[in-house]
Amino acid sequence: MYDPRNSPLVPFAPLREVFLRDGDSPSALLERCIRTLQEREPEVRAFVTLDLDGARAAAAASDARYKARSPLSPLDGCPFGVKDIIATRDMPTQMNSAIYAGHRPAHDAAGVQAMRAGGAVILGKTVTTEFACGESGPTRNPFDPERTPGGSSSGSGAGVGSGMMCAAFGTQTRASIVRPAAYNGAYGYKPTIGALNLGGVHPVSPSLDHLGSIAASLADCWLVARHVAAMVGGDPHCRPLSGPMELPPPAVPGRVAFIRTNGWAETPAESQAEFEGFLEFLRNVGVTVADASADTDLAAFEAALQPVDDWSRALMAYEMRWPMRGYRDRGDNALGPTIQALLQLSDRMSEADYGALLDRRDALIARHAALAARYDLIVTLCSDGPAPKGLVFTGNRAFITPWSVLGAPSLALPMLAAEGMPLGVQMIGYRGADAAMMGVARWIDEAWFGKV
Amino acid sequence: MYDPRNSPLVPFAPLREVFLRDGDSPSALLERCIRTLQEREPEVRAFVTLDLDGARAAAAASDARYKARSPLSPLDGCPFGVKDIIATRDMPTQMNSAIYAGHRPAHDAAGVQAMRAGGAVILGKTVTTEFACGESGPTRNPFDPERTPGGSSSGSGAGVGSGMMCAAFGTQTRASIVRPAAYNGAYGYKPTIGALNLGGVHPVSPSLDHLGSIAASLADCWLVARHVAAMVGGDPHCRPLSGPMELPPPAVPGRVAFIRTNGWAETPAESQAEFEGFLEFLRNVGVTVADASADTDLAAFEAALQPVDDWSRALMAYEMRWPMRGYRDRGDNALGPTIQALLQLSDRMSEADYGALLDRRDALIARHAALAARYDLIVTLCSDGPAPKGLVFTGNRAFITPWSVLGAPSLALPMLAAEGMPLGVQMIGYRGADAAMMGVARWIDEAWFGKV
Repeated sequence: MYDPRNSPLVPFAPLREVFLRDGDSPSALLERCIRTLQEREPEVRAFVTLDLDGARAAAAASDARYKARSPLSPLDGCPFGVKDIIATRDMPTQMNSAIYAGHRPAHDAAGVQAMRAGGAVILGKTVTTEFACGESGPTRNPFDPERTPGGSSSGSGAGVGSGMMCAAFGTQTRASIVRPAAYNGAYGYKPTIGALNLGGVHPVSPSLDHLGSIAASLADCWLVARHVAAMVGGDPHCRPLSGPMELPPPAVPGRVAFIRTNGWAETPAESQAEFEGFLEFLRNVGVTVADASADTDLAAFEAALQPVDDWSRALMAYEMRWPMRGYRDRGDNALGPTIQALLQLSDRMSEADYGALLDRRDALIARHAALAARYDLIVTLCSDGPAPKGLVFTGNRAFITPWSVLGAPSLALPMLAAEGMPLGVQMIGYRGADAAMMGVARWIDEAWFGKV
Repeated sequence: MYDPRNSPLVPFAPLREVFLRDGDSPSALLERCIRTLQEREPEVRAFVTLDLDGARAAAAASDARYKARSPLSPLDGCPFGVKDIIATRDMPTQMNSAIYAGHRPAHDAAGVQAMRAGGAVILGKTVTTEFACGESGPTRNPFDPERTPGGSSSGSGAGVGSGMMCAAFGTQTRASIVRPAAYNGAYGYKPTIGALNLGGVHPVSPSLDHLGSIAASLADCWLVARHVAAMVGGDPHCRPLSGPMELPPPAVPGRVAFIRTNGWAETPAESQAEFEGFLEFLRNVGVTVADASADTDLAAFEAALQPVDDWSRALMAYEMRWPMRGYRDRGDNALGPTIQALLQLSDRMSEADYGALLDRRDALIARHAALAARYDLIVTLCSDGPAPKGLVFTGNRAFITPWSVLGAPSLALPMLAAEGMPLGVQMIGYRGADAAMMGVARWIDEAWFGKV
């Protein structure tokens, strides 16, 4: 039975001061992670490539830096995983596609360059669905091997959630950070669109693709993302993630909005009740919780979100024409049926269809921004219940896609349980205001877990 | 003696109807280009990799499509070159750097995928300066082998200008399409920032990098760019290039603004006089030409442009940290001194320095947009005279960088000559209004060359 108050997560941030006073070391931390990995990985299959020798060498170098009281960054010594659509010089990057079997990139992705330069300890490459948008990989949920770990950042979610590492890169085009974080009892952070440099990440849909972190705590999520922005910036035509290098201080929330999304009606009673209990907790600690019944603007916004999952599928289909049509044109039939179907959708789309979707998205972004004056955050579930049974379907996206389309920062927090499995709370902030979202989320997280 | 009215350019657009009535064929056109190439290439050195067998096969396939009256696109059969920082599956992509010697990308860049799907005939990879921002390559100016072809799209400019092919991809971060087009007597087109998909192009500075075309005519420039946008779209957070698939119809200009830039004072009298003659021609055909002396807003805007070259250098240095710092960190000293110096500049920059540059750029973009109500175009030279002597320095950027920083569409037109060499006229439109710029530029080009 999964218990969010007693989970296998291995938070990194608090260990750094212990490293500095020689009470622990990156190598000892790594060996603890490796023990968990050796125990769980045969069943969980979070990794497609492991480099434990490389990780041990990196940890030993980090040990020496802490002994010299000069860590390279706030993440020096952090056991870390890299989703296998993100380029690494020293390990294959295979996209879970036969097209890239054994592929060796010429250089590290921007995020990997940043993590390496900061002294992170990279254990290996984590399983992704095919190109982060196609067929599922072999990963299983660490809390029930008959259930999906979610996708597309399946291995990053399962590996962090089971305690094999402290943090990992995920990417999200529609749901692929928040969903696997939630299903595996990990924290997940999808920054504002473009806030982290996607260079070297295989594209799915560049106007929807986000790089982010799945980690053992809010602090770890933030450290990873903020360090990447400081080292290699954001995407073109966007501002890089800004704010303090460490997790922003807790900020007392005033008002939050509960948005049910299309997913709520599909959510079983136990999961609904768990989430209602969380809202009741918020009210008890003095937070005003509004929903569509209390605010007609919120009701109108929620109604406007209804078609967003369909739009996002079409946006994604259109934008994946490069390179996916190129792969299709090779004629070796190497793409799975999900991507083939998306390409067929793209074949039926015109430039005008695509332009209309961009216009609709812009209008929706403006509506969302207008809510900032009234609500600190949006809160909702991450999914219609915990991870479903089966390893093919990676789960419902209805609670998650709207915030990807809006490019708004969002978080998964492993606060709840249902069916003996993790059930994540999702919090959504405003574009460019990631640090403000983090402060409020931190306050709620600490209050919920009795850390304050 | 170079004569713009009798240059070796090989326009492609008018040949298509000749192909359709069997008066010519893509294979015959290719063989004419290959004859020029065999004659000129030993001296000019426009190509780093040639694939004439592949080109002949592609041309033969195109012949068959024209015979069947079903060309794949408006560019079917067009002899084409690809700058060697742009990925090609079937040819090495070497960035003019030892780091990429013999490098074989896993897939085509977005632009290459689009051109191949449209039936273009790719002759080979054209010489670039090191990573399009470092040391010069071996290419020589086809009109004087002791002079630079300009950079960084050196081979694309020299190859098109000497008639080895009809069109080629160039990329421009600060000056790299307009300068080599102008120095080699070719047309060059840098679209609005983000209007063409840069996927698979080695990044220099993603918020300044533009994909564009160097070609034998305005029509050919437009066909290439518009086709790429139709097939693979633009960059994330930007709108793809829009407008008719063929060159927009001529549009009579009303008022144009002449902006001298920092470059005018450095321009020799012969080149100044040539350009003044062009302005006089405009006035004679009824166009109002204003400059800073006639419009205080224009004077203020021109003054605001003065520091732009310095800003753009710093923006570029900051943004090239990925992947250039990764290359530096390898310790094999493979980067040339120009890039090393840029990285040293980036080492001294803070996130706040970078943010301040982005703010300044945004303010300048707004000032430029405000001119749209009064001027159809900005006109100026492409450079402070024709290509300078020597093969190390690729030429002055002062006339060109401002429009890269603004992300405004710009053109080089081979209308003038000085010192017996090509001297380009530059025309600059407004962000997102590429088709409008093209219509006005077409009218002027046709009037100048007596085509109307």
